[in-house]
Amino acid sequence: MAGEGPPLQCGMASHDFDRLIKPHVIRDGKKFRLADHDPADTVEMTDRKKAEALLEEGVKRIAVLQERLYAQNQWALLLIFQAMDAAGKDGTIKHVMSGINPQGCDVRSFKAPTADELDHDFMWRCFTRLPERGRIGIFNRSYYEETLVVRVHPEYLRAQHLPAKCITDNIWDERYEDINAFEKYLTNNGIVIRKFFLHVSKEEQRTRLLARLTDPEKNWKFSEADIAERARWDEYQDAYERTIRHTSTDRAPWVVVPADKKWYTRLVVAQTVIECLESLDLAFPAVDAARQRELKAIEQAFRNEKD
Amino acid sequence: MAGEGPPLQCGMASHDFDRLIKPHVIRDGKKFRLADHDPADTVEMTDRKKAEALLEEGVKRIAVLQERLYAQNQWALLLIFQAMDAAGKDGTIKHVMSGINPQGCDVRSFKAPTADELDHDFMWRCFTRLPERGRIGIFNRSYYEETLVVRVHPEYLRAQHLPAKCITDNIWDERYEDINAFEKYLTNNGIVIRKFFLHVSKEEQRTRLLARLTDPEKNWKFSEADIAERARWDEYQDAYERTIRHTSTDRAPWVVVPADKKWYTRLVVAQTVIECLESLDLAFPAVDAARQRELKAIEQAFRNEKD
Repeated sequence: MAGEGPPLQCGMASHDFDRLIKPHVIRDGKKFRLADHDPADTVEMTDRKKAEALLEEGVKRIAVLQERLYAQNQWALLLIFQAMDAAGKDGTIKHVMSGINPQGCDVRSFKAPTADELDHDFMWRCFTRLPERGRIGIFNRSYYEETLVVRVHPEYLRAQHLPAKCITDNIWDERYEDINAFEKYLTNNGIVIRKFFLHVSKEEQRTRLLARLTDPEKNWKFSEADIAERARWDEYQDAYERTIRHTSTDRAPWVVVPADKKWYTRLVVAQTVIECLESLDLAFPAVDAARQRELKAIEQAFRNEKD
Repeated sequence: MAGEGPPLQCGMASHDFDRLIKPHVIRDGKKFRLADHDPADTVEMTDRKKAEALLEEGVKRIAVLQERLYAQNQWALLLIFQAMDAAGKDGTIKHVMSGINPQGCDVRSFKAPTADELDHDFMWRCFTRLPERGRIGIFNRSYYEETLVVRVHPEYLRAQHLPAKCITDNIWDERYEDINAFEKYLTNNGIVIRKFFLHVSKEEQRTRLLARLTDPEKNWKFSEADIAERARWDEYQDAYERTIRHTSTDRAPWVVVPADKKWYTRLVVAQTVIECLESLDLAFPAVDAARQRELKAIEQAFRNEKD
């Protein structure tokens, strides 16, 4: 792959690149505390203009890598986005992924489960939407809702029609364990996973929700439910912390992305996707000498075609 | 539930019932050897007529239990059938399950994977067909093909487009582990699992395949592939032994059903299904006193309805 396409990490030295991403990636959650992560952090990236230029390059680089992913048709990439309301999931997906060929990328949004979905095991609705080989699958919310909103709202758990024997005192630990095992299975099968928690502060959420109430172009995004959920902020933060602590693994790390500055959020997500794709052995499928001779013969015949 | 419906275990004393099923159920596979299981075994059931009468009662009992399963809408039952050709999977499913309401039962047959299925992780095609709560789901073949036929035929593994890094020396152990974790997840979520290996002898398979070649009513079932696979008998037996050894768990046991005598095979499968359903807390959803009063009021209004 050397020499193909733009240089690694879009013009950043590999060294700078590591510095940008590393503080946010959780590969072992045991000691994870949300309080150690500042939503307004931009680490060493203080120049917004520079960040925006890097993002622009990064989006192009993702497009190049995605084409190889698609042509090779072996690996798949699953990107999971979780966040409080107004943390910027939709905008991040739009700005980071807009350069790529939609034929190789599926975005699935998981909203309140339907009656049909509630009649199945909790990951079922996500199982059916896993990316095919060669594709990037994006989950806008995911099975992680099951240890977040469902934990904060016990009435949602009751709505799942689980037999009483299955609602044990360890149900959340069991869910973490089942999710970890499932993600291990996926990576065993060539589905590479990155999970993004867009970490917004309560104050910044307030500003953004107010904008949804006052800006006519943003009114459509406002929902009364956002205010109700905001009232349970601490419970949500606690549920996120526990989830990240128990489900951060080397194979399927969480990336805790500071989300108070959108330009920084997007850059971190883009660079993580690039780093992840660069780590794979992506290449256009090679054609061996015998096949090259065949193609040559077909080419000759084709050139001599009579109308 | 006491006093409802026919007595437990269809007229067999619970003690006899245990004796019938127990020798075949593998809840800990560590020491499992196929050679310890005789395909022609009928344990203490020597009277075919009696067995057929018990099967008939058993089928009725399953229908009663399935109705409760459906009404309660909490548990689901997943029955997996694996076997060599002509071991009697189709006939067993037909004879054991024909008494029940098809609205509460789905049978899924997994044949050679399609191109679309090969583009996903190996359990994907089964994920999408998992039973809903309240249902019995039957897998006629399953994800276990992935440690059986795919192990015997390495070319099938190559056809899965896995990245080279994912085809490790431990791939079969990883698959066993992933399958065990997945089945644990399912049972955590109210999906009860029983896995049947219909264990036929090589000699009995020969007789049955010859019948497919000579009996005009059975000709349609014959496929040249059956003969080709039979030639790899020992490799298949080895793959079954390893699979059962590594994936028999207390939650999701294998039942190694002697399959040389069809009447016995069917009885063991039926009794296993009954035992499994009886072990659940199945009951028609209870209506509380307040709701009973409501129903009474609605009934009164309804009786007084004017045309």
